[in-house]
Amino acid sequence: MFVRNKFVQKRVAFPEYEIIEAAYNPVDIAVKIVHDGRADILMKGNVQTGALIKSVLNKDYGIMKGKLLSHVLFVESPVFHKVFLVTDSAIVTNPDLLHKKAILESAVYALNSIGYKKPKVAVLTAVENVNPKMQETVDAAELKRLNDLGEIKNCIVEGPISTDLALDKEASKIKGFSSPVAGDPDILLMPNLVAGNIAVKIIRLLGQSTVAGLVLGAKAPIVLTSRSTSAKSKFLSIALSVAIANKE
Amino acid sequence: MFVRNKFVQKRVAFPEYEIIEAAYNPVDIAVKIVHDGRADILMKGNVQTGALIKSVLNKDYGIMKGKLLSHVLFVESPVFHKVFLVTDSAIVTNPDLLHKKAILESAVYALNSIGYKKPKVAVLTAVENVNPKMQETVDAAELKRLNDLGEIKNCIVEGPISTDLALDKEASKIKGFSSPVAGDPDILLMPNLVAGNIAVKIIRLLGQSTVAGLVLGAKAPIVLTSRSTSAKSKFLSIALSVAIANKE
Repeated sequence: MFVRNKFVQKRVAFPEYEIIEAAYNPVDIAVKIVHDGRADILMKGNVQTGALIKSVLNKDYGIMKGKLLSHVLFVESPVFHKVFLVTDSAIVTNPDLLHKKAILESAVYALNSIGYKKPKVAVLTAVENVNPKMQETVDAAELKRLNDLGEIKNCIVEGPISTDLALDKEASKIKGFSSPVAGDPDILLMPNLVAGNIAVKIIRLLGQSTVAGLVLGAKAPIVLTSRSTSAKSKFLSIALSVAIANKE
Repeated sequence: MFVRNKFVQKRVAFPEYEIIEAAYNPVDIAVKIVHDGRADILMKGNVQTGALIKSVLNKDYGIMKGKLLSHVLFVESPVFHKVFLVTDSAIVTNPDLLHKKAILESAVYALNSIGYKKPKVAVLTAVENVNPKMQETVDAAELKRLNDLGEIKNCIVEGPISTDLALDKEASKIKGFSSPVAGDPDILLMPNLVAGNIAVKIIRLLGQSTVAGLVLGAKAPIVLTSRSTSAKSKFLSIALSVAIANKE
């Protein structure tokens, strides 16, 4: 269904959809519809992302389920042998260990729900050893330990691991790094937002990859489209959201 | 010339080169040779990077010139219209504003020395606005201000700027972001080492780019080869070092 502001100038007929005319706060109305179980996906239209997130987080009619919202981007690269997922490149600015654990678990949950039994997670850093001056390496080792202990389930976590070892099995052989994740990851967990954001934009622009993104952590997948997102990418994001929503 | 440990097992004849047999500390001897002006480039062989850097930084016979060492990587992407340089993805772990200024100035100096009069610098962040919760955006705005004031010379600095606006002129038009740097950068200044490291490895592996790297800040360019570096990349790194060393 569409929720639209009744003052919207350009009217388009969608006879196959239910149209809800919203005099005020179309965002709140859309979130309430998901809250009431009348819709399975929330998708951002021509509204501010901040307003949407605020409504999602609202304690009365909001739709939070997990510990935090995070963004996952599915990537299909013309030169990599499988689709992988990158998280988080859009929402959690400076994640600490607990944030990273929640981000990781959301991505694993999404992949589990569409048929991946044990997705392989690469916790990306610049190096393979733990360096106390690089907090992301400490966090990566701890995430791997929690996975080994069974506190992070339904996945195989490797870290700290550098990007060449994560993406290139040959490089990991040369460096003597042995891991089922090396060269074959399903999830790239980024150390922080700015690294993730730069990475996914390079993947898209210089890596000429097809991407589809959605936001996890709410009762329904959220599609956050950007003005510069292609129609194909939007379509794939909706399709993935449908798959994940149906399995939840 | 080659400096080699006299205990090296595998001997190779290089009649056109001067060979220096070093019983101990071949690294120190090589650095001293550069220090004395008898060589124009320092290149790492089968020694530890840490030992090399330590010797370069030595106060008595070391070869530091700038404020700090930093790594620059020249990138030739099959889908971008020009070569650009990425810094720093290998040496300065958590750069503060002054470190970033020094990293930026080293890269500009290198490009100036090989003929770029006013290289265009994109100070990469995840967004275009200054956000106090994202220190890299604050630093980026300050670097741009210092450039406007003439305190960072011989270049055009833009920031904060996101990667899509830096690499894609169309995206910057859609978002109404006007800058000579948008879509046409010569230098991508990374917010920190881990973001830079992930970015350059993605550029190389998923972006299928040719890269050539060297270390700046010493009296001579330093070529730091890695075991997983291709012969072509090593060759280009040496060639660029020669060009930069000859112009200094």
